[in-house]
Amino acid sequence: MIAQTPNPPYYAVIFTSVRTEPDLAYTEMATVMHELAKTQDGFLGIESARENVGITVSYWRDLESIKKWKAHSEHLQAQKLGREKWYQTYKTRICLVERDYEFSR
Amino acid sequence: MIAQTPNPPYYAVIFTSVRTEPDLAYTEMATVMHELAKTQDGFLGIESARENVGITVSYWRDLESIKKWKAHSEHLQAQKLGREKWYQTYKTRICLVERDYEFSR
Repeated sequence: MIAQTPNPPYYAVIFTSVRTEPDLAYTEMATVMHELAKTQDGFLGIESARENVGITVSYWRDLESIKKWKAHSEHLQAQKLGREKWYQTYKTRICLVERDYEFSR
Repeated sequence: MIAQTPNPPYYAVIFTSVRTEPDLAYTEMATVMHELAKTQDGFLGIESARENVGITVSYWRDLESIKKWKAHSEHLQAQKLGREKWYQTYKTRICLVERDYEFSR
């Protein structure tokens, strides 16, 4: 679903990736990492979809909480497996959300 | 594919949406808008995927080019149809990309 984030400013991490061959362990790890991210201090929300590319956007209170999540021991292990096995290529962008607006029917 | 963007800083527009019922006209309009966006001054790239939510991230040189694209007459018409017919809900976030890094196998 669409993340219910507070009023800006806050941070977004846009993670865009192209996978190698599908792998059940990847799906399990992705679920575990989503659940673990949600428990981190400063986590605000997450949105994710995959077709030809996967796009996961996670939202954070500040750069410090992003830095801590990147350095979390279980997340480090997942990142290592990602580079070794699961990702053909990826790009991570750290962004300051300056403004947002929404529509609902 | 993953957008080949220049070194930061640049801007990202994260558009997250939930659709109403599938509609061929929507798919056609989305394709036309992607192609039209690519021709705009300041456009840097686009990434898109849809599962339960759709996430489209477009990248831009500056706020001015985002503002012009938002006000483009054909894009305005597409936005209007989006609110009238195609989207249950959406959220748009305007972000300054401060830092990025990538991995390739």
